[in-house]
Amino acid sequence: MTRSELVHQIFSKQTYLCIGLDTDITKIPAHLLEEPDPVFTFNKAIIDATHEYCVAYKINTAFYEAMGVKGWSSLEKTIQYIPDTHFTIADAKRGDIGNTSDQYAKAFFETLPFDSVTVAPYMGEDSVKPFLQYPGKWAIVLGLTSNQGAADFEMLPLSFQQKASDKNIYLYEQVLHTTQRWGTIENLMFVVGATKASEFTNIRSIVPDHFLLVPGVGAQGGSLKEISEKAMNKDGGLLINASRSIIYASAGFDFAEKAAAEAKALQEEMKEYIGRVVSCRL
Amino acid sequence: MTRSELVHQIFSKQTYLCIGLDTDITKIPAHLLEEPDPVFTFNKAIIDATHEYCVAYKINTAFYEAMGVKGWSSLEKTIQYIPDTHFTIADAKRGDIGNTSDQYAKAFFETLPFDSVTVAPYMGEDSVKPFLQYPGKWAIVLGLTSNQGAADFEMLPLSFQQKASDKNIYLYEQVLHTTQRWGTIENLMFVVGATKASEFTNIRSIVPDHFLLVPGVGAQGGSLKEISEKAMNKDGGLLINASRSIIYASAGFDFAEKAAAEAKALQEEMKEYIGRVVSCRL
Repeated sequence: MTRSELVHQIFSKQTYLCIGLDTDITKIPAHLLEEPDPVFTFNKAIIDATHEYCVAYKINTAFYEAMGVKGWSSLEKTIQYIPDTHFTIADAKRGDIGNTSDQYAKAFFETLPFDSVTVAPYMGEDSVKPFLQYPGKWAIVLGLTSNQGAADFEMLPLSFQQKASDKNIYLYEQVLHTTQRWGTIENLMFVVGATKASEFTNIRSIVPDHFLLVPGVGAQGGSLKEISEKAMNKDGGLLINASRSIIYASAGFDFAEKAAAEAKALQEEMKEYIGRVVSCRL
Repeated sequence: MTRSELVHQIFSKQTYLCIGLDTDITKIPAHLLEEPDPVFTFNKAIIDATHEYCVAYKINTAFYEAMGVKGWSSLEKTIQYIPDTHFTIADAKRGDIGNTSDQYAKAFFETLPFDSVTVAPYMGEDSVKPFLQYPGKWAIVLGLTSNQGAADFEMLPLSFQQKASDKNIYLYEQVLHTTQRWGTIENLMFVVGATKASEFTNIRSIVPDHFLLVPGVGAQGGSLKEISEKAMNKDGGLLINASRSIIYASAGFDFAEKAAAEAKALQEEMKEYIGRVVSCRL
Protein backbone atom coordinates (compact mmCIF):
# COMPACT_ATOMS: atom_id res chain seq x y z
CA MET A 1 0.00 0.00 0.00
CA THR A 2 1.38 3.41 -0.93
CA ARG A 3 1.49 6.40 1.39
CA SER A 4 -1.22 8.23 -0.54
CA GLU A 5 -3.52 5.19 -0.32
CA LEU A 6 -2.91 4.96 3.42
CA VAL A 7 -3.58 8.68 3.93
CA HIS A 8 -6.75 8.34 1.87
CA GLN A 9 -7.96 5.50 4.11
CA ILE A 10 -7.22 7.50 7.27
CA PHE A 11 -9.18 10.55 6.15
CA SER A 12 -12.07 8.73 4.55
CA LYS A 13 -12.60 6.44 7.55
CA GLN A 14 -11.60 9.04 10.16
CA THR A 15 -9.38 6.65 12.02
CA TYR A 16 -5.69 5.85 12.41
CA LEU A 17 -6.26 2.79 14.53
CA CYS A 18 -4.13 -0.30 14.03
CA ILE A 19 -5.38 -3.48 15.67
CA GLY A 20 -2.73 -5.88 16.92
CA LEU A 21 -3.50 -9.54 16.35
CA ASP A 22 -1.31 -10.85 19.19
CA THR A 23 -3.48 -13.92 19.26
CA ASP A 24 -2.59 -16.24 22.14
CA ILE A 25 -4.38 -19.58 22.03
CA THR A 26 -4.44 -19.65 25.86
CA LYS A 27 -6.42 -16.38 25.96
CA ILE A 28 -9.08 -16.81 23.29
CA PRO A 29 -12.64 -17.83 24.22
CA ALA A 30 -12.85 -21.50 25.18
CA HIS A 31 -15.63 -22.33 22.73
CA LEU A 32 -13.27 -21.59 19.81
CA LEU A 33 -10.89 -24.37 20.81
CA GLU A 34 -13.20 -26.89 19.14
CA GLU A 35 -12.59 -25.28 15.74
CA PRO A 36 -10.02 -26.85 13.38
CA ASP A 37 -7.97 -23.61 13.48
CA PRO A 38 -9.01 -21.68 16.61
CA VAL A 39 -6.51 -18.85 16.07
CA PHE A 40 -7.64 -18.14 12.53
CA THR A 41 -11.31 -18.44 13.53
CA PHE A 42 -10.69 -15.90 16.28
CA ASN A 43 -8.79 -13.52 13.98
CA LYS A 44 -11.46 -13.79 11.27
CA ALA A 45 -14.19 -12.83 13.73
CA ILE A 46 -12.11 -9.92 15.08
CA ILE A 47 -11.39 -8.66 11.55
CA ASP A 48 -15.05 -8.96 10.50
CA ALA A 49 -16.15 -7.03 13.59
CA THR A 50 -13.51 -4.28 13.62
CA HIS A 51 -12.42 -3.54 10.06
CA GLU A 52 -14.57 -0.45 9.67
CA TYR A 53 -12.95 1.20 12.70
CA CYS A 54 -9.30 0.69 11.78
CA VAL A 55 -6.95 1.24 8.86
CA ALA A 56 -4.33 -1.35 9.74
CA TYR A 57 -3.79 -4.78 11.29
CA LYS A 58 -0.53 -5.76 12.93
CA ILE A 59 0.28 -9.45 13.24
CA ASN A 60 2.71 -10.21 16.04
CA THR A 61 4.64 -13.13 14.57
CA ALA A 62 5.87 -14.43 17.97
CA PHE A 63 2.41 -15.65 18.95
CA TYR A 64 2.16 -17.70 15.75
CA GLU A 65 5.72 -19.08 15.84
CA ALA A 66 5.04 -20.28 19.39
CA MET A 67 2.64 -22.81 17.82
CA GLY A 68 5.11 -24.06 15.20
CA VAL A 69 3.97 -25.08 11.70
CA LYS A 70 0.30 -24.86 12.73
CA GLY A 71 0.82 -21.29 13.92
CA TRP A 72 2.58 -20.28 10.73
CA SER A 73 -0.39 -21.69 8.82
CA SER A 74 -2.82 -19.61 10.94
CA LEU A 75 -0.67 -16.56 10.20
CA GLU A 76 -0.84 -17.22 6.43
CA LYS A 77 -4.62 -17.60 6.51
CA THR A 78 -4.97 -14.44 8.58
CA ILE A 79 -2.87 -12.19 6.33
CA GLN A 80 -4.74 -13.53 3.30
CA TYR A 81 -8.07 -12.74 4.95
CA ILE A 82 -7.34 -9.08 5.78
CA PRO A 83 -9.04 -6.82 3.19
CA ASP A 84 -6.85 -4.96 0.65
CA THR A 85 -8.20 -1.71 2.06
CA HIS A 86 -6.15 -2.26 5.22
CA PHE A 87 -2.44 -1.67 5.75
CA THR A 88 -0.78 -4.83 7.08
CA ILE A 89 2.19 -5.04 9.42
CA ALA A 90 4.30 -8.10 10.20
CA ASP A 91 5.43 -7.15 13.69
CA ALA A 92 8.46 -9.40 13.50
CA LYS A 93 11.38 -7.19 14.66
CA ARG A 94 13.65 -8.80 12.06
CA GLY A 95 17.12 -7.65 10.93
CA ASP A 96 20.31 -9.51 10.01
CA ILE A 97 23.26 -9.26 7.60
CA GLY A 98 22.28 -8.27 4.07
CA ASN A 99 21.88 -11.70 2.46
CA THR A 100 19.75 -12.84 5.42
CA SER A 101 17.59 -9.72 5.57
CA ASP A 102 16.97 -10.34 1.85
CA GLN A 103 15.37 -13.64 2.88
CA TYR A 104 13.24 -12.02 5.59
CA ALA A 105 12.03 -9.43 3.07
CA LYS A 106 11.18 -12.27 0.69
CA ALA A 107 9.31 -14.09 3.50
CA PHE A 108 7.03 -11.18 4.32
CA PHE A 109 6.78 -9.33 0.97
CA GLU A 110 6.82 -12.16 -1.60
CA THR A 111 5.80 -15.41 0.09
CA LEU A 112 3.33 -13.50 2.28
CA PRO A 113 1.57 -10.32 1.11
CA PHE A 114 2.40 -7.98 4.02
CA ASP A 115 2.70 -4.24 3.37
CA SER A 116 5.36 -3.75 6.03
CA VAL A 117 7.72 -5.40 8.52
CA THR A 118 9.06 -4.03 11.80
CA VAL A 119 12.87 -4.03 11.74
CA ALA A 120 15.45 -3.84 14.56
CA PRO A 121 18.19 -1.32 13.67
CA TYR A 122 21.12 -2.63 15.75
CA MET A 123 22.96 -4.23 12.80
CA GLY A 124 22.81 -1.09 10.62
CA GLU A 125 22.30 -0.24 6.99
CA ASP A 126 22.64 -3.57 5.20
CA SER A 127 20.24 -5.15 7.71
CA VAL A 128 17.51 -2.57 6.96
CA LYS A 129 17.91 -1.82 3.24
CA PRO A 130 16.53 -5.11 1.86
CA PHE A 131 13.14 -4.13 3.28
CA LEU A 132 13.22 -0.83 1.35
CA GLN A 133 13.61 -2.37 -2.11
CA TYR A 134 9.98 -3.30 -2.79
CA PRO A 135 7.61 -0.73 -4.36
CA GLY A 136 4.64 -0.05 -2.09
CA LYS A 137 6.23 -1.98 0.82
CA TRP A 138 7.61 -0.50 4.02
CA ALA A 139 10.23 -1.01 6.72
CA ILE A 140 9.08 0.13 10.16
CA VAL A 141 12.30 0.65 12.12
CA LEU A 142 12.39 0.55 15.92
CA GLY A 143 13.03 4.03 17.27
CA LEU A 144 12.03 4.35 20.92
CA THR A 145 10.04 1.37 22.13
CA SER A 146 7.26 1.25 24.72
CA ASN A 147 8.92 -1.15 27.16
CA GLN A 148 10.98 -0.53 30.29
CA GLY A 149 14.09 -1.98 28.61
CA ALA A 150 14.12 1.01 26.24
CA ALA A 151 16.18 2.76 28.94
CA ASP A 152 19.02 0.22 28.69
CA PHE A 153 20.36 1.08 25.23
CA GLU A 154 17.88 3.20 23.22
CA MET A 155 18.15 6.05 25.75
CA LEU A 156 21.95 5.95 26.11
CA PRO A 157 23.57 9.32 25.39
CA LEU A 158 26.13 9.28 22.58
CA SER A 159 29.41 11.20 22.70
CA PHE A 160 28.32 13.87 20.24
CA GLN A 161 25.62 16.41 19.62
CA GLN A 162 23.51 16.61 16.50
CA LYS A 163 23.85 20.41 16.45
CA ALA A 164 26.45 22.55 18.23
CA SER A 165 25.43 23.48 21.79
CA ASP A 166 22.72 20.84 21.93
CA LYS A 167 22.66 18.10 24.52
CA ASN A 168 24.33 14.81 23.67
CA ILE A 169 21.87 12.87 21.61
CA TYR A 170 20.43 9.51 22.56
CA LEU A 171 21.02 6.36 20.55
CA TYR A 172 17.38 6.25 19.46
CA GLU A 173 17.62 9.81 18.09
CA GLN A 174 20.70 8.86 16.09
CA VAL A 175 18.77 5.85 14.77
CA LEU A 176 16.09 8.24 13.49
CA HIS A 177 18.68 10.63 11.99
CA THR A 178 20.71 7.91 10.28
CA THR A 179 17.96 5.55 9.20
CA GLN A 180 15.86 8.21 7.50
CA ARG A 181 18.70 8.68 4.99
CA TRP A 182 18.23 5.07 3.82
CA GLY A 183 14.59 5.44 2.81
CA THR A 184 11.88 7.98 2.17
CA ILE A 185 8.59 8.96 3.76
CA GLU A 186 7.05 6.62 1.17
CA ASN A 187 8.73 3.42 2.43
CA LEU A 188 9.98 4.02 5.96
CA MET A 189 8.15 4.44 9.26
CA PHE A 190 9.38 4.36 12.86
CA VAL A 191 8.12 2.60 15.98
CA VAL A 192 7.70 5.00 18.91
CA GLY A 193 6.05 3.74 22.06
CA ALA A 194 3.02 5.61 23.42
CA THR A 195 4.49 5.32 26.92
CA LYS A 196 7.24 7.79 25.91
CA ALA A 197 4.93 10.79 25.45
CA SER A 198 7.53 13.29 26.70
CA GLU A 199 9.78 12.46 23.74
CA PHE A 200 7.21 12.93 20.98
CA THR A 201 7.78 16.65 20.37
CA ASN A 202 11.48 15.98 20.03
CA ILE A 203 10.85 12.99 17.76
CA ARG A 204 8.67 15.10 15.45
CA SER A 205 11.50 17.65 15.19
CA ILE A 206 13.71 14.86 13.80
CA VAL A 207 11.16 13.06 11.60
CA PRO A 208 8.36 15.58 10.96
CA ASP A 209 6.85 13.82 7.95
CA HIS A 210 7.30 10.09 8.55
CA PHE A 211 4.51 7.89 9.73
CA LEU A 212 4.99 6.61 13.27
CA LEU A 213 3.66 3.26 14.44
CA VAL A 214 2.73 3.78 18.08
CA PRO A 215 2.14 0.76 20.29
CA GLY A 216 1.48 1.10 23.99
CA VAL A 217 -2.02 2.62 24.06
CA GLY A 218 -4.38 0.35 25.98
CA ALA A 219 -2.84 -2.42 28.08
CA GLN A 220 0.49 -0.57 28.38
CA GLY A 221 -1.12 2.73 29.48
CA GLY A 222 -0.13 5.36 26.87
CA SER A 223 -2.49 8.32 26.26
CA LEU A 224 -4.15 8.52 22.84
CA LYS A 225 -4.98 12.21 23.36
CA GLU A 226 -1.47 13.27 24.32
CA ILE A 227 0.21 11.33 21.50
CA SER A 228 -2.25 12.63 18.92
CA GLU A 229 -1.82 16.26 19.98
CA LYS A 230 1.96 16.03 20.04
CA ALA A 231 2.65 13.83 17.04
CA MET A 232 0.00 14.16 14.31
CA ASN A 233 1.06 15.88 11.13
CA LYS A 234 -0.92 17.12 8.15
CA ASP A 235 -1.25 13.59 6.74
CA GLY A 236 -2.22 12.16 10.08
CA GLY A 237 1.18 10.55 10.30
CA LEU A 238 0.25 8.09 13.02
CA LEU A 239 -0.83 4.49 13.25
CA ILE A 240 -1.83 3.93 16.86
CA ASN A 241 -1.86 0.28 17.81
CA ALA A 242 -3.99 -1.41 20.43
CA SER A 243 -3.87 -5.18 20.82
CA ARG A 244 -4.90 -6.78 24.09
CA SER A 245 -7.41 -4.06 25.10
CA ILE A 246 -9.38 -4.78 21.91
CA ILE A 247 -8.97 -8.45 21.08
CA TYR A 248 -9.41 -9.64 24.68
CA ALA A 249 -12.19 -7.19 25.61
CA SER A 250 -14.31 -10.24 26.43
CA ALA A 251 -13.47 -13.91 26.88
CA GLY A 252 -17.05 -14.99 26.16
CA PHE A 253 -19.25 -15.60 23.13
CA ASP A 254 -19.49 -11.83 22.66
CA PHE A 255 -15.71 -11.37 22.16
CA ALA A 256 -16.03 -9.96 18.63
CA GLU A 257 -18.86 -7.62 19.57
CA LYS A 258 -16.91 -6.30 22.58
CA ALA A 259 -13.78 -5.92 20.45
CA ALA A 260 -15.82 -3.88 17.96
CA ALA A 261 -17.08 -1.64 20.78
CA GLU A 262 -13.53 -0.99 21.99
CA ALA A 263 -12.34 -0.27 18.46
CA LYS A 264 -15.31 2.00 17.77
CA ALA A 265 -14.60 4.01 20.94
CA LEU A 266 -11.01 4.58 19.83
CA GLN A 267 -12.15 5.47 16.30
CA GLU A 268 -14.57 8.07 17.65
CA GLU A 269 -11.86 9.64 19.75
CA MET A 270 -9.52 9.61 16.75
CA LYS A 271 -12.16 11.26 14.58
CA GLU A 272 -12.15 14.20 16.98
CA TYR A 273 -8.34 14.56 16.80
CA ILE A 274 -8.34 14.31 13.01
CA GLY A 275 -10.84 17.16 12.91
CA ARG A 276 -9.17 19.32 15.53
CA VAL A 277 -5.44 18.62 15.26
CA VAL A 278 -4.81 17.89 11.60
CA SER A 279 -6.74 20.94 10.44
CA CYS A 280 -4.31 23.15 12.40
CA ARG A 281 -1.30 21.58 10.69
CA LEU A 282 -2.36 21.95 7.08
CA MET B 1 22.78 -28.47 26.56
CA THR B 2 24.75 -27.26 29.57
CA ARG B 3 28.07 -25.48 29.40
CA SER B 4 29.95 -28.48 30.80
CA GLU B 5 28.39 -30.75 28.18
CA LEU B 6 29.38 -28.33 25.42
CA VAL B 7 32.94 -28.04 26.72
CA HIS B 8 33.14 -31.83 26.92
CA GLN B 9 32.08 -32.11 23.27
CA ILE B 10 34.66 -29.53 22.20
CA PHE B 11 37.57 -31.28 23.91
CA SER B 12 36.55 -34.82 23.07
CA LYS B 13 35.99 -34.08 19.38
CA GLN B 14 38.77 -31.46 19.13
CA THR B 15 36.60 -28.99 17.30
CA TYR B 16 34.63 -25.82 17.97
CA LEU B 17 33.08 -25.68 14.54
CA CYS B 18 29.47 -24.64 14.11
CA ILE B 19 27.92 -25.32 10.72
CA GLY B 20 25.35 -22.84 9.51
CA LEU B 21 22.36 -24.36 7.75
CA ASP B 22 21.49 -21.25 5.71
CA THR B 23 19.78 -23.50 3.24
CA ASP B 24 18.59 -21.61 0.17
CA ILE B 25 16.46 -23.69 -2.18
CA THR B 26 17.85 -21.76 -5.16
CA LYS B 27 21.40 -22.84 -4.29
CA ILE B 28 21.09 -26.53 -3.46
CA PRO B 29 21.99 -29.19 -6.04
CA ALA B 30 19.37 -29.44 -8.78
CA HIS B 31 18.83 -33.18 -8.40
CA LEU B 32 17.41 -32.62 -4.88
CA LEU B 33 14.53 -30.53 -6.21
CA GLU B 34 12.71 -33.75 -7.14
CA GLU B 35 12.53 -34.76 -3.45
CA PRO B 36 9.29 -34.09 -1.50
CA ASP B 37 11.25 -31.82 0.89
CA PRO B 38 14.45 -30.74 -0.89
CA VAL B 39 15.62 -28.49 1.95
CA PHE B 40 15.34 -31.18 4.61
CA THR B 41 16.91 -33.77 2.30
CA PHE B 42 19.84 -31.41 1.74
CA ASN B 43 20.21 -30.66 5.48
CA LYS B 44 20.02 -34.35 6.40
CA ALA B 45 22.81 -35.19 3.98
CA ILE B 46 24.94 -32.28 5.26
CA ILE B 47 24.39 -33.34 8.89
CA ASP B 48 25.18 -36.98 8.13
CA ALA B 49 28.39 -35.99 6.36
CA THR B 50 29.68 -33.34 8.78
CA HIS B 51 28.53 -34.16 12.31
CA GLU B 52 31.81 -35.68 13.40
CA TYR B 53 33.69 -32.48 12.56
CA CYS B 54 31.47 -29.99 14.39
CA VAL B 55 29.90 -29.46 17.80
CA ALA B 56 27.04 -27.21 16.75
CA TYR B 57 24.54 -26.49 14.00
CA LYS B 58 23.06 -23.05 13.45
CA ILE B 59 19.76 -22.80 11.60
CA ASN B 60 19.23 -19.41 9.99
CA THR B 61 15.47 -19.02 10.31
CA ALA B 62 15.18 -16.44 7.51
CA PHE B 63 15.89 -19.00 4.80
CA TYR B 64 13.05 -21.22 6.08
CA GLU B 65 10.54 -18.40 6.63
CA ALA B 66 11.15 -17.31 3.04
CA MET B 67 9.37 -20.53 2.01
CA GLY B 68 6.36 -20.03 4.29
CA VAL B 69 4.64 -22.99 5.99
CA LYS B 70 6.65 -25.47 3.93
CA GLY B 71 9.89 -23.86 5.10
CA TRP B 72 8.82 -23.89 8.74
CA SER B 73 8.11 -27.61 8.32
CA SER B 74 11.60 -28.20 6.88
CA LEU B 75 13.02 -26.30 9.86
CA GLU B 76 11.14 -28.53 12.33
CA LYS B 77 12.32 -31.70 10.63
CA THR B 78 15.90 -30.43 10.57
CA ILE B 79 16.10 -29.49 14.26
CA GLN B 80 14.58 -32.84 15.17
CA TYR B 81 17.18 -34.65 13.05
CA ILE B 82 20.26 -33.03 14.62
CA PRO B 83 21.84 -35.45 17.13
CA ASP B 84 21.59 -34.64 20.85
CA THR B 85 25.37 -34.52 20.98
CA HIS B 86 25.28 -31.24 19.04
CA PHE B 87 24.50 -27.77 20.36
CA THR B 88 21.73 -26.18 18.31
CA ILE B 89 21.25 -22.50 17.54
CA ALA B 90 18.15 -20.81 16.16
CA ASP B 91 19.81 -17.88 14.41
CA ALA B 92 16.67 -15.80 14.53
CA LYS B 93 17.80 -12.40 15.90
CA ARG B 94 14.59 -12.11 17.90
CA GLY B 95 13.75 -9.61 20.66
CA ASP B 96 10.58 -7.73 21.62
CA ILE B 97 8.73 -6.48 24.71
CA GLY B 98 8.61 -9.01 27.55
CA ASN B 99 5.28 -10.71 26.83
CA THR B 100 6.29 -11.12 23.17
CA SER B 101 9.82 -12.36 23.87
CA ASP B 102 8.12 -14.92 26.15
CA GLN B 103 6.38 -16.25 23.04
CA TYR B 104 9.60 -16.36 21.01
CA ALA B 105 11.30 -18.29 23.83
CA LYS B 106 8.36 -20.68 23.82
CA ALA B 107 8.62 -21.07 20.03
CA PHE B 108 12.29 -22.09 20.07
CA PHE B 109 12.66 -23.77 23.50
CA GLU B 110 9.30 -25.53 24.00
CA THR B 111 7.61 -26.00 20.62
CA LEU B 112 11.02 -26.61 19.02
CA PRO B 113 13.95 -28.20 20.89
CA PHE B 114 16.67 -25.61 20.21
CA ASP B 115 19.43 -25.10 22.79
CA SER B 116 19.79 -21.40 22.01
CA VAL B 117 18.43 -18.40 20.14
CA THR B 118 20.28 -15.34 18.86
CA VAL B 119 18.77 -12.17 20.35
CA ALA B 120 18.98 -8.52 19.27
CA PRO B 121 19.68 -6.29 22.30
CA TYR B 122 18.21 -2.95 21.13
CA MET B 123 15.04 -3.21 23.26
CA GLY B 124 16.89 -3.96 26.50
CA GLU B 125 16.43 -6.17 29.53
CA ASP B 126 12.83 -7.34 29.30
CA SER B 127 13.40 -8.29 25.63
CA VAL B 128 16.34 -10.56 26.52
CA LYS B 129 15.42 -12.06 29.90
CA PRO B 130 12.68 -14.45 28.73
CA PHE B 131 15.37 -16.40 26.85
CA LEU B 132 17.38 -16.82 30.09
CA GLN B 133 14.63 -18.55 32.09
CA TYR B 134 15.03 -22.09 30.73
CA PRO B 135 17.53 -24.48 32.39
CA GLY B 136 20.12 -25.66 29.88
CA LYS B 137 18.99 -23.14 27.24
CA TRP B 138 20.89 -20.07 26.09
CA ALA B 139 20.45 -16.55 24.75
CA ILE B 140 23.15 -15.51 22.30
CA VAL B 141 23.06 -11.72 22.28
CA LEU B 142 24.37 -9.67 19.36
CA GLY B 143 27.54 -7.87 20.38
CA LEU B 144 29.60 -6.76 17.39
CA THR B 145 28.34 -8.26 14.16
CA SER B 146 30.32 -9.25 11.07
CA ASN B 147 28.58 -6.98 8.57
CA GLN B 148 29.45 -3.51 7.25
CA GLY B 149 26.38 -2.02 8.99
CA ALA B 150 28.00 -2.77 12.38
CA ALA B 151 29.65 0.65 12.00
CA ASP B 152 26.31 2.49 11.94
CA PHE B 153 25.20 1.94 15.54
CA GLU B 154 27.19 -0.85 17.25
CA MET B 155 30.42 1.16 16.90
CA LEU B 156 28.98 4.52 18.01
CA PRO B 157 30.89 6.02 20.93
CA LEU B 158 28.79 6.71 24.01
CA SER B 159 29.14 9.83 26.17
CA PHE B 160 30.91 8.05 29.01
CA GLN B 161 33.88 5.86 29.80
CA GLN B 162 33.70 2.50 31.50
CA LYS B 163 36.74 3.38 33.64
CA ALA B 164 38.16 6.83 34.37
CA SER B 165 40.67 7.99 31.74
CA ASP B 166 39.59 5.34 29.24
CA LYS B 167 38.30 6.20 25.80
CA ASN B 168 34.57 6.64 25.37
CA ILE B 169 33.11 3.19 25.02
CA TYR B 170 31.23 1.95 22.01
CA LEU B 171 27.60 0.89 22.11
CA TYR B 172 28.51 -2.75 21.52
CA GLU B 173 30.89 -2.68 24.51
CA GLN B 174 28.13 -1.31 26.71
CA VAL B 175 25.86 -4.09 25.42
CA LEU B 176 28.44 -6.62 26.63
CA HIS B 177 28.85 -4.85 30.00
CA THR B 178 25.13 -4.49 30.67
CA THR B 179 23.83 -7.73 29.22
CA GLN B 180 26.24 -9.97 31.12
CA ARG B 181 24.56 -8.81 34.35
CA TRP B 182 21.28 -10.39 33.17
CA GLY B 183 22.64 -13.91 32.78
CA THR B 184 25.61 -16.10 33.56
CA ILE B 185 28.33 -17.88 31.62
CA GLU B 186 25.98 -20.88 31.79
CA ASN B 187 23.12 -19.34 29.79
CA LEU B 188 24.47 -16.35 27.87
CA MET B 189 26.79 -16.10 24.88
CA PHE B 190 27.59 -13.20 22.54
CA VAL B 191 27.80 -12.90 18.77
CA VAL B 192 31.08 -11.33 17.64
CA GLY B 193 31.88 -11.27 13.93
CA ALA B 194 35.15 -12.79 12.74
CA THR B 195 35.65 -9.79 10.47
CA LYS B 196 36.27 -7.62 13.56
CA ALA B 197 39.51 -9.33 14.61
CA SER B 198 41.05 -6.10 15.94
CA GLU B 199 38.34 -5.90 18.62
CA PHE B 200 38.72 -9.42 20.01
CA THR B 201 41.38 -8.66 22.64
CA ASN B 202 39.23 -5.85 23.96
CA ILE B 203 36.12 -8.04 23.88
CA ARG B 204 37.87 -10.74 25.91
CA SER B 205 38.79 -8.10 28.52
CA ILE B 206 35.04 -7.42 28.96
CA VAL B 207 33.72 -10.99 28.74
CA PRO B 208 36.69 -13.27 29.48
CA ASP B 209 34.67 -16.38 30.30
CA HIS B 210 31.59 -16.29 28.07
CA PHE B 211 31.30 -18.36 24.94
CA LEU B 212 31.38 -16.30 21.75
CA LEU B 213 29.53 -17.33 18.61
CA VAL B 214 31.71 -16.13 15.76
CA PRO B 215 30.26 -15.95 12.25
CA GLY B 216 32.21 -14.50 9.36
CA VAL B 217 34.88 -17.15 8.78
CA GLY B 218 34.65 -18.49 5.25
CA ALA B 219 32.53 -16.54 2.75
CA GLN B 220 32.88 -13.31 4.78
CA GLY B 221 36.68 -13.55 5.04
CA GLY B 222 37.52 -13.70 8.78
CA SER B 223 40.69 -15.52 9.92
CA LEU B 224 40.20 -18.66 12.02
CA LYS B 225 43.81 -18.51 13.20
CA GLU B 226 43.69 -14.90 14.35
CA ILE B 227 40.34 -15.27 16.13
CA SER B 228 41.41 -18.47 17.85
CA GLU B 229 44.68 -16.99 19.10
CA LYS B 230 43.02 -13.83 20.38
CA ALA B 231 39.78 -15.18 21.78
CA MET B 232 40.07 -18.75 23.03
CA ASN B 233 39.88 -19.25 26.76
CA LYS B 234 40.59 -22.27 28.93
CA ASP B 235 37.21 -23.85 28.05
CA GLY B 236 37.66 -23.15 24.35
CA GLY B 237 35.05 -20.43 24.64
CA LEU B 238 34.39 -20.15 20.93
CA LEU B 239 31.89 -21.53 18.47
CA ILE B 240 33.18 -20.57 15.04
CA ASN B 241 30.49 -20.68 12.40
CA ALA B 242 30.90 -21.34 8.71
CA SER B 243 27.85 -21.63 6.49
CA ARG B 244 28.17 -21.04 2.77
CA SER B 245 31.80 -22.19 2.47
CA ILE B 246 30.77 -25.63 3.76
CA ILE B 247 27.22 -26.29 2.64
CA TYR B 248 27.74 -24.95 -0.89
CA ALA B 249 31.25 -26.40 -1.38
CA SER B 250 29.85 -28.24 -4.39
CA ALA B 251 26.61 -27.86 -6.34
CA GLY B 252 26.84 -31.40 -7.72
CA PHE B 253 26.04 -34.92 -6.57
CA ASP B 254 29.12 -34.79 -4.32
CA PHE B 255 27.83 -31.81 -2.28
CA ALA B 256 27.81 -33.70 1.04
CA GLU B 257 31.23 -35.22 0.48
CA LYS B 258 32.71 -31.80 -0.40
CA ALA B 259 30.98 -30.24 2.63
CA ALA B 260 32.55 -32.92 4.81
CA ALA B 261 35.99 -32.17 3.35
CA GLU B 262 35.60 -28.44 4.12
CA ALA B 263 34.38 -29.19 7.65
CA LYS B 264 37.21 -31.67 8.22
CA ALA B 265 39.81 -29.12 7.12
CA LEU B 266 38.46 -26.60 9.63
CA GLN B 267 38.31 -29.27 12.36
CA GLU B 268 41.94 -30.18 11.76
CA GLU B 269 42.99 -26.56 12.01
CA MET B 270 40.91 -26.17 15.18
CA LYS B 271 42.52 -29.26 16.70
CA GLU B 272 45.87 -27.53 16.40
CA TYR B 273 44.61 -24.39 18.16
CA ILE B 274 42.96 -26.39 20.94
CA GLY B 275 46.29 -28.10 21.56
CA ARG B 276 48.45 -24.98 21.30
CA VAL B 277 46.30 -22.10 22.56
CA VAL B 278 44.07 -23.58 25.22
CA SER B 279 46.95 -25.33 26.97
CA CYS B 280 48.59 -21.92 27.54
CA ARG B 281 45.42 -20.56 29.17
CA LEU B 282 44.79 -23.25 31.71
